[in-house]
Amino acid sequence: MVKNIKDIKKIKLEGTNLSNVYKQVAINENDGWNDYVMRIFTLQQGGFTPEHSHPWPHINYVIEGKGTLYLDGVHYTVEDGFVAYIPPNSIHQFKNTEDREFKFICIVPKGYDK
Amino acid sequence: MVKNIKDIKKIKLEGTNLSNVYKQVAINENDGWNDYVMRIFTLQQGGFTPEHSHPWPHINYVIEGKGTLYLDGVHYTVEDGFVAYIPPNSIHQFKNTEDREFKFICIVPKGYDK
Repeated sequence: MVKNIKDIKKIKLEGTNLSNVYKQVAINENDGWNDYVMRIFTLQQGGFTPEHSHPWPHINYVIEGKGTLYLDGVHYTVEDGFVAYIPPNSIHQFKNTEDREFKFICIVPKGYDK
Repeated sequence: MVKNIKDIKKIKLEGTNLSNVYKQVAINENDGWNDYVMRIFTLQQGGFTPEHSHPWPHINYVIEGKGTLYLDGVHYTVEDGFVAYIPPNSIHQFKNTEDREFKFICIVPKGYDK
């Protein structure tokens, strides 16, 4: 399977603890990846994901833009070319801090694409 | 764990069936990811990976540049923003076709970071 993420439908996430977050499902079990799901998140201007924790890990790669990643008490400034491993049960949050899109890959174990 | 891939050591791959290929190990079990390894490959000008197959899958995301991905009889033109799932035992090869670096993520199951 080969595809351009520009051709994947963007879903706007709804919630009281997030803002301006869009998700695309890039690779999942329908493509053959049986145990993880690759999603692409886009935070538009002012966008942020929830400050939360959960029992599964995720793996991130920042594709474009610049923002902050809060992880277990530390605010990291991250931009394209940064990777992160978010351990299970750690508190974390992504925020877009610039006037352009902030886009990153987020890989989670199958069943946790929420 | 948060890191910039610019700070990760590049290893030049050696072999008779590849050229101008550099690998960085971005996330592995030392970071907490117990079952997969995220690597970053850079193909310099004229670079290509082997045309080969193997019993494990890999998951790719093109970060920058432009090239071709040969997969099971089809040559795809790919550039930044393309994803691919390479199924086990499928014949595949990446080639850089431009005068700049071609860089992509390649995720493999643990034990197959070769």
